Amino acid sequence: MRATVMYGAGDVRIENVPDARIIKPTDALVTITRACICGSDLWPYQQMKPSEIGNRMGHEFIGIVEAVGTEVQRVKPGDLVVAPFAWSDGTCIFCQGGLHTSCLHGGFWGGTELDGGQGEAVRVPQADGTLVVLPVSPDHALMPSLLTLSDVMGTGHHAALAAKVAPGKTVAVVGDGAVGLCGVIAARRLGAEQIILLGRHPDRIALGRDFGATDIVSERGEAAIERVRALTGGLGAHSVLECVGHGEATRTALSIARAGGAVGRVGVPQDATMPAAMSTFFRNITIAGGPAPVRAYIEELLPDVIEGRIEPGRVFDRTITLNGVPDGYRAMNDREAIKVMIRF
Amino acid sequence: MRATVMYGAGDVRIENVPDARIIKPTDALVTITRACICGSDLWPYQQMKPSEIGNRMGHEFIGIVEAVGTEVQRVKPGDLVVAPFAWSDGTCIFCQGGLHTSCLHGGFWGGTELDGGQGEAVRVPQADGTLVVLPVSPDHALMPSLLTLSDVMGTGHHAALAAKVAPGKTVAVVGDGAVGLCGVIAARRLGAEQIILLGRHPDRIALGRDFGATDIVSERGEAAIERVRALTGGLGAHSVLECVGHGEATRTALSIARAGGAVGRVGVPQDATMPAAMSTFFRNITIAGGPAPVRAYIEELLPDVIEGRIEPGRVFDRTITLNGVPDGYRAMNDREAIKVMIRF
Repeated sequence: MRATVMYGAGDVRIENVPDARIIKPTDALVTITRACICGSDLWPYQQMKPSEIGNRMGHEFIGIVEAVGTEVQRVKPGDLVVAPFAWSDGTCIFCQGGLHTSCLHGGFWGGTELDGGQGEAVRVPQADGTLVVLPVSPDHALMPSLLTLSDVMGTGHHAALAAKVAPGKTVAVVGDGAVGLCGVIAARRLGAEQIILLGRHPDRIALGRDFGATDIVSERGEAAIERVRALTGGLGAHSVLECVGHGEATRTALSIARAGGAVGRVGVPQDATMPAAMSTFFRNITIAGGPAPVRAYIEELLPDVIEGRIEPGRVFDRTITLNGVPDGYRAMNDREAIKVMIRF
Repeated sequence: MRATVMYGAGDVRIENVPDARIIKPTDALVTITRACICGSDLWPYQQMKPSEIGNRMGHEFIGIVEAVGTEVQRVKPGDLVVAPFAWSDGTCIFCQGGLHTSCLHGGFWGGTELDGGQGEAVRVPQADGTLVVLPVSPDHALMPSLLTLSDVMGTGHHAALAAKVAPGKTVAVVGDGAVGLCGVIAARRLGAEQIILLGRHPDRIALGRDFGATDIVSERGEAAIERVRALTGGLGAHSVLECVGHGEATRTALSIARAGGAVGRVGVPQDATMPAAMSTFFRNITIAGGPAPVRAYIEELLPDVIEGRIEPGRVFDRTITLNGVPDGYRAMNDREAIKVMIRF
């Protein structure tokens, strides 16, 4: 079968790889109908050291179950399913607590051992725990929004929960990528009164406004902090969604939270440390978040997508086929595209 | 009047200073009956650069109201009162939200501008918001425990709340100082099932066991982390109370929290940064806490002290007079005493 393999920074190839197949009795074999490229894929695209064997890529996909192992009971051949960006058994102590990204028997797609979502098919470990059956046909118009349930919409929702967004709160969203935009959707969905989007790309800002952002801050660093303070009566935001991951974004997020407020982090940290004293301790800022347990959120968010109350699929502004994936990475890295969908 | 002034590391003097007096109509004048030395006073005792004017010291006290300004309504001359370690108006948006340490019109005792608690009398700004009247006589046997409501008991409680302690949870307390020991009391009071105290001083450990610690870990660094993991089925603690403040304690606290757990920080951070990625983000650890709004907790904790359900005053293992304060600092710094009470 054909799949995406990254061999180093900027070196993304579509290659023949061994066919995905069932290995364990808890596996399912899924042929992919939709997948996409993630902002987090751009970190290795910018930084990966050259590798001879390469890493299989992609962790967001929708597909059709082709076959299941002997122990799989919840999904069956023919089901259209969405997969979260981490697989999980659904039964361990962490899954029971809703933290599927820490599943004791789970893991992440791609790399050197597992299939990735940016390919024709995937072996899905822990299929019963991992996959969620979608109640629509594979070419339904809602495919883009349903695909965001595999990562970015659930991740934006996680940021909002970690930042304690609640009705009437003032929220700031750091980052206008797909996750930040989904964070705006999540904040509005949870009843935020004021939603300040920190971003600078006109197309993304326009979409952010459509999603519910009430204010836009395009300054950076100290100027951005000043601007958010001015927009919040000098106090800062109750809830801040950090949807970027680099050090400046983190420092900005911590600085614009009001005393007693919370920062929900979902951007993968690119720095080893963050402030411990000023900006955090002395103002009693809560710092929460991490890899989103999107599996926990799919059932909650699915009705809002199906019934059209939220439209996170609008973050996809380019659709390609598998052969177009290398250029899709380039387009996202060059900020030509917000998020790229792969149609099989 | 006589009061404690610190002129540099190790240089604590008892001196004549200007008499405390009412300056603003919202002030009260309080003569001190009990005060104490705080673990946080040891940071400047170890590190303060020499100063010609010196800093007035002390932020924990009980006293008798001698006089009040024209706008003071809630407290009156003759009242026995306890003061939290930060003064606050009780009416601003942060006080209303229970975060009195971020009061828009509040501040902290001592320094170069204000009286400190380690002296004969104090001008109390924002007296109506700050002071809490105690329903006992000035020499009541509960004075030590009531005095802890000014800081360490409320601070331990804050750590426990920030760490989301709840019935049935596994809790780890990093640090066996007065705050850590009060953290043990708070964790037990909030229903923790297992309370692991990380400490190494036999007298403190014994008191910690009396207060409810179920396990003691006296190792340090990686060995301490391994030991806590072993005591928690390999998972770590749901709630970790960081009651020290230096970098190693913070790193230990973050490492022994289980995935999805929370660290409540109340030790004043001595490092500028803390881990941002591993130990925190990837395991969805919540980091919360800061200067405890003990004013918010006094009414809640007071009945438990009055009725003898908690005995935080047992952290005082030495009582001195004002002239003994310099030696009291030395004794706490040398770990001869857990916490020193000053009797006037």
